[in-house]
Amino acid sequence: MSIDGQIQRSLEAANRDFDGFIRELREFIGIRSISYSPEHNADCAMAASWLGKRLENLGCTRVEIYETVRHPIVYGELPAGKTHVPTVLVYGHYDIQPPEPLGDWMSDPFMAEVRGDHLYGRGASDMKGPLLACLAAVRAMLAVGEIPVNLKFIFEGDEETAAEPMDDFLKEHGSLLKADVCLNVDSGMLGSEIPTITYGLRGSSNCTVRIFGPAQDLHDGMFGGVVQNPIHVLARLISGLQDEYGRVTLPGFYDRVRAIDPEEHALIERHPHDTAFFLSASGATGLVEDPDYLPVERIGWRPSMNVRWIEGGARKNAIPVQAEARISFRIVPDQDHRQVHQMLLDYLDERTPPSVHWEVEKYIGDQGVIVDTNTPAVRALSRALSTVWGSEPLLCRIGGSIPVVGELKEKLRIDTALTGFGLPDDNIHGPNERIHLPTLRRGIQALIHFLYGLDLEKKK
Amino acid sequence: MSIDGQIQRSLEAANRDFDGFIRELREFIGIRSISYSPEHNADCAMAASWLGKRLENLGCTRVEIYETVRHPIVYGELPAGKTHVPTVLVYGHYDIQPPEPLGDWMSDPFMAEVRGDHLYGRGASDMKGPLLACLAAVRAMLAVGEIPVNLKFIFEGDEETAAEPMDDFLKEHGSLLKADVCLNVDSGMLGSEIPTITYGLRGSSNCTVRIFGPAQDLHDGMFGGVVQNPIHVLARLISGLQDEYGRVTLPGFYDRVRAIDPEEHALIERHPHDTAFFLSASGATGLVEDPDYLPVERIGWRPSMNVRWIEGGARKNAIPVQAEARISFRIVPDQDHRQVHQMLLDYLDERTPPSVHWEVEKYIGDQGVIVDTNTPAVRALSRALSTVWGSEPLLCRIGGSIPVVGELKEKLRIDTALTGFGLPDDNIHGPNERIHLPTLRRGIQALIHFLYGLDLEKKK
Repeated sequence: MSIDGQIQRSLEAANRDFDGFIRELREFIGIRSISYSPEHNADCAMAASWLGKRLENLGCTRVEIYETVRHPIVYGELPAGKTHVPTVLVYGHYDIQPPEPLGDWMSDPFMAEVRGDHLYGRGASDMKGPLLACLAAVRAMLAVGEIPVNLKFIFEGDEETAAEPMDDFLKEHGSLLKADVCLNVDSGMLGSEIPTITYGLRGSSNCTVRIFGPAQDLHDGMFGGVVQNPIHVLARLISGLQDEYGRVTLPGFYDRVRAIDPEEHALIERHPHDTAFFLSASGATGLVEDPDYLPVERIGWRPSMNVRWIEGGARKNAIPVQAEARISFRIVPDQDHRQVHQMLLDYLDERTPPSVHWEVEKYIGDQGVIVDTNTPAVRALSRALSTVWGSEPLLCRIGGSIPVVGELKEKLRIDTALTGFGLPDDNIHGPNERIHLPTLRRGIQALIHFLYGLDLEKKK
Repeated sequence: MSIDGQIQRSLEAANRDFDGFIRELREFIGIRSISYSPEHNADCAMAASWLGKRLENLGCTRVEIYETVRHPIVYGELPAGKTHVPTVLVYGHYDIQPPEPLGDWMSDPFMAEVRGDHLYGRGASDMKGPLLACLAAVRAMLAVGEIPVNLKFIFEGDEETAAEPMDDFLKEHGSLLKADVCLNVDSGMLGSEIPTITYGLRGSSNCTVRIFGPAQDLHDGMFGGVVQNPIHVLARLISGLQDEYGRVTLPGFYDRVRAIDPEEHALIERHPHDTAFFLSASGATGLVEDPDYLPVERIGWRPSMNVRWIEGGARKNAIPVQAEARISFRIVPDQDHRQVHQMLLDYLDERTPPSVHWEVEKYIGDQGVIVDTNTPAVRALSRALSTVWGSEPLLCRIGGSIPVVGELKEKLRIDTALTGFGLPDDNIHGPNERIHLPTLRRGIQALIHFLYGLDLEKKK
């Protein structure tokens, strides 16, 4: 059978199995693998073993579940039917963001529900759906014959929270992952008719800042005006970190931010997300204004700051003992996350008044990444997406972070082909997260084209 | 029996009954009458009926429990043995602040424990202890003979939270409360050897400010830098409300603040609370600096701002939909709480960027008060305190609010004699609240002297 014939029959197999795929996805969404909460450790372990089982069912010759300092990492190997073919490392993460606020969901976040063309549930888009799409593509190909490339699978459980487990794994078991390319579908598309290849990711530098005031809650009448309130200090510190355009005021913060080059300006002009898009996607009454940069530039090309949560005091008439906030910087190449963190520490040191003291804890950082788009894998991916969608994919830099992309490049010299089948209005990290099923179906088709196409590319 | 003999025997009776008084106080502290939490409504009702029972046991000829929009108000009448004597309205509140954080208590806040000279428990000082001290004084006097003044009792359950119940009561049942003076022991002392009469109270103007950003939590990578984060806006708004000295920046805020007059400067010089006191009482590493005003002036004579709590976001990587803070101003005569609130509204209106919207809710306000100290009742109170402590009481303005003082004056023309037996290190509103038992015992003695002395004063 010709390659084209094999592709055709694999596509048919995938279509036939799409209902089974949805059943499997609903089962996966049912596992509450929230990596943020230690109370869900057992759920994360369950998600890992559930994925291990899927890999075994696929016929992997080796499946292992590695314990880490946090949640297990699942590894699997599925050799091709022939030798001298490329090896593709398929990356995924089974962990999800917390579903709260639960009251804002129209259906149970862990009882996935199909409404219209969408399936709703936590992780549907980020990234239980796309992860299973990779397995569905492989299963469809196996239904037709042997797979044309060697496959390795690596699924982690801390993408949403911590870098250490994957860092440690790459250090200790890096040689296992030897591959020609990593396929990562944890990015997304700019629109359902805009296949997208991501070549730039922001990194991040995050920590929790705690401000300590009086030794105990104090009556705010008896002490108010004299004893410093840690909430006031924290508010001033946060407020001082940005100017009116939301630009970070830390000295030197932008020194290493790359200018946008002319080629990239051409890509940005094709980018469909304008002010109207951001207003509609956010439901906000207005955007942060910046006279010098377009919204998409501020998301993909420029760093930003975001306070994820703030907390202090209680429902009583008191000056509280402490206040804390999670301060997160999204950084871009060539910023260094440790250097940005040091800038914040210097700022806190300089600007915190002597009436309180401060501490920083739970630091997490990762570097921004630019992926080389001139590789056989990215070319194959581009062809695959073009074939399915009937239009050239857009090359794009996104605002999110996928730490493993940079780590694989830095530690193992493995380039990543980065795409995704989630849409901007999938509400990832928010309530009513969903995945657009017709797009996910096309995603599976594109993955089949990609895996066959990689082999072709190799032969060129 | 001479008045002096009656006083002497009443003091002895009070001393004999002090253990019984402590048992009663422990029982009262056991009732979790937290007016902040609707879940404690039944506890508040229980506290009211418990107090009603105490008034009946005392021999009150009339005891009533009035329902209000929040928690019940207890009213009682106990006529004197003879006519043409003054009528004293004894005020108290049975509600308490929440005990959280529970982990910081060395003993259960609702299982009062005596350690050394102190009794520990929520409300021990504010004000279950002082309230019961009034009843103990009356009981001791009744054990000796008939009481020398007519007594009325009014105990509310919303002093810590809301003004409406007492406001409504004064409107509807004000005539019940007709009295020559109100005795209010909800203030405190500046030190265990410094009997104190309070003549100034701060008022307050409090509301919750909510800032609304995106319609749902948004991935902070995909939207960070473009969609406004309501925490950032709230931090800027809070930060903009004060200068580096903690002074409120609202235009006109200080216009109506009375200057400190020379007589008051003399009182302030006698005030024992210096910087060292505030550092030690707060356990803070420093105080808010102000080159122009002493700490005690900033507490008693100057207004202040305090954010009681702040809240926004969750433990996930998102731009949250909203953030909120409870902003409280402590105001002084002749500021007007409604005018201060309007200044805040104007500020929010002017300074909130169009990328979010804001709302204000749960407004509570009350006026600051200056009590006339040249009244028969305050003179009698001064003599009573001098007799027990052996030194002249200090006249003082304090930073807290006791809304009923101003309301009684404004609506019913009743002056208040305001004192208390709590000490500055009683940790009211904080963990390990306590009352100094030897001081409370002296307080009961002083109340006996006061009630007998009032009648003498009348005869002058």
